[in-house]
Amino acid sequence: MFFEGSEKKIELHIDPSAKSLRAYPRDFWQQALAMADASILSNLSNSHCDAYVLSESSLFVWQHKLLLITCGNTRLIDTVLFIIEKIGTDHISGLNYQRKSEFLPHLQTTQFEDDIALLKAKVPGTAYRIGHLDSHHHYLYTASQPIKHEMSACLLMYHIEGEVAQYLRSAEQSCANIRRLLNLDRLLPQFEFDDHLFQPCGYSINGLFEDKFLTIHITPQERSSYVSVETNVNFLQYPFNIFAELLKVLNPRSWDIIGLNTQIEQRGFPCNRRLASCDLKLNQHNDFNYYHYIQAESETLIAEVL
Amino acid sequence: MFFEGSEKKIELHIDPSAKSLRAYPRDFWQQALAMADASILSNLSNSHCDAYVLSESSLFVWQHKLLLITCGNTRLIDTVLFIIEKIGTDHISGLNYQRKSEFLPHLQTTQFEDDIALLKAKVPGTAYRIGHLDSHHHYLYTASQPIKHEMSACLLMYHIEGEVAQYLRSAEQSCANIRRLLNLDRLLPQFEFDDHLFQPCGYSINGLFEDKFLTIHITPQERSSYVSVETNVNFLQYPFNIFAELLKVLNPRSWDIIGLNTQIEQRGFPCNRRLASCDLKLNQHNDFNYYHYIQAESETLIAEVL
Repeated sequence: MFFEGSEKKIELHIDPSAKSLRAYPRDFWQQALAMADASILSNLSNSHCDAYVLSESSLFVWQHKLLLITCGNTRLIDTVLFIIEKIGTDHISGLNYQRKSEFLPHLQTTQFEDDIALLKAKVPGTAYRIGHLDSHHHYLYTASQPIKHEMSACLLMYHIEGEVAQYLRSAEQSCANIRRLLNLDRLLPQFEFDDHLFQPCGYSINGLFEDKFLTIHITPQERSSYVSVETNVNFLQYPFNIFAELLKVLNPRSWDIIGLNTQIEQRGFPCNRRLASCDLKLNQHNDFNYYHYIQAESETLIAEVL
Repeated sequence: MFFEGSEKKIELHIDPSAKSLRAYPRDFWQQALAMADASILSNLSNSHCDAYVLSESSLFVWQHKLLLITCGNTRLIDTVLFIIEKIGTDHISGLNYQRKSEFLPHLQTTQFEDDIALLKAKVPGTAYRIGHLDSHHHYLYTASQPIKHEMSACLLMYHIEGEVAQYLRSAEQSCANIRRLLNLDRLLPQFEFDDHLFQPCGYSINGLFEDKFLTIHITPQERSSYVSVETNVNFLQYPFNIFAELLKVLNPRSWDIIGLNTQIEQRGFPCNRRLASCDLKLNQHNDFNYYHYIQAESETLIAEVL
C-alpha cells in the first residue's frame, strides 16, 4: 500500500520574446511528460493558464512560465531537459528545481545530485540542501539569472489522522465529498476546480482564478500519508488563512511550510512546536524560507509488523 | 566528507550445549567479518569476553552470546548467515537483528527487507519498524524462540556541536585526549578500554569489566555527525547516569534512547522535547522501548551549498 507522495518540482520562466508556452499543443506536453512516465488525465483553462491534472500530480502552463510537479518514481528531470531542449536554453530566463526528501529514497531512479549534474550542463545555477539528512529536508537548485520569481506558498503535511483521513482511505470516496470536506468552495469561492480520484486511493485537485492557482495532492495511505498544497494566492488578501484551515481538516502529525518571496503567517495553526526554520537569500531578488512543525504533544508510536 | 555512521547490529545466543563461541579462533571471526567487508583492528579480552575493535564498529564474543555492530556500507547480514551456517541453526537459541534508518539509504547495498528475507529462511521470527519512514526509525527482527535477552541500553546521538565536537573534527586528535574528554575513566573506573582513531576522523572504543561491556563509535563529520553508545551496564548501580554525562559532553541536536529489558532514566538529560516513544512487548520475556528526543530550542538551519 506504499506510494511515494514526495514531489519533485520545476518552475521555469521564459523571456517575453519567446513563443508563448500556451501555444505548444497538448501533444507536446504529453510527449514531454512521457519522458518522466507521467501523463495528462484532465485539464482546465482560463484566459491566463492551462492546468493539467496528471497521473502523478500537476502541470500549470502560463504564457511565459510553467510549474510542473510530479511524485511517485517519476523522472521529472527527463521532462525538464526535453522542455529546455525544445524551448532553447537561450530563452530560459529563470528556473527553480526542488525535491523533497523521499520516504523511500532507495526506490527512486535518480537522486537530486544526479538530476543537478544534468541540469547544470544546460542552465548554470546553485544547489542547496535545507534540513538535515536524518530529518525532513529539501533540495533546491536555482538558476544563476536573478529574475524575480512570483511568490509561492507550499504546505506539506505528513501522517494525517482523524475522520477526514479515514474517509480518504475508505472504499466509499467521491470527488464531490472530498471537495466538500476540504471546504474549497468556501475558502476559494472564485476558483474553478478540476479533480481526480485515484484507485485504490489518492486525490488530486487543481484550481484556477485569473492568474492564481491552487493545487492539492493527497496520498492518504496509512503509515506513509502525505498531502501537498501549493499556491500563488496571497493569503493576506483572503478572510481565511487557507493553510490553517486545511491543517484543521487533515490533522497531520507534522508539516512543512515553504515560502518563496513570501512569509506565511501561522495564525490559526494547530497547537505545535516549530522544530526548525531556515531563511535563505537565494540572490538579490529571491528569498526562500522553510519551517518544520510538529504537533505539540509527544507521539506514542505503534510498531509496525512488517 | 560523508560517512554512514548508522549501524546494523546482531545479538546472537547459542544454547549452552554448543561449542563456546570463544573457542572459535580469531581467523574464524576474520573470515566471517570479511563477508561484510569488515576486519579486526585490535582486541581486548578478559575471563568473560573477547572484544574486537573493527574497521567498522565492534564485535563482542562471550561463551554463548555474540554482539556484532557494523556501520558504513557493510553487509552485516552476510556475516550473520556465515556464522549461523558454521554454528548450525539448531544451536541458535535467540537472535535480535536491528538496523537504524540510514542518513543515505540509497547508498546501502541491501535494505532491511532484503536482509530479513534471507534471515527468515534460517531463523523464523518477526520483523518490526519502530518510527515513521520520514523520521528516525529502527528496524528490528526477533527470533520466535522466546529466550530472555540480557538488558542492553543504547544511546544514539545526531549532530554533535560544541568544543568536543570541534576537537573530534580537528587534525590534532589523539586517543588519549578523546578518552579524557569522554571522561570514561571517571564514569567507568573498573573498565579496561581498547580504542582506535580513524583517518581523517572517527573514533571507536570498546570497554570491558567482567561480563559488562561498553562501546562508543563516533562519526564526527560536520552535517552528518553520529555517535552510538551501547552497553549492558545497569546505570542504577552507578553514581552517574552515563548517558546523561555523554550527552553533556557531545551536545547532540537530537538523540534516540533504546532499551531492551530496561527503562533508561532521563535524570540529567539536557533540556529537551521528547518527540516520540514506543513500548513494544516482543514476547513474554522481552520488552523493547524507544524514545526520540530533540533539544528544546527550535533550530535555525543553515542551508548547505552542494
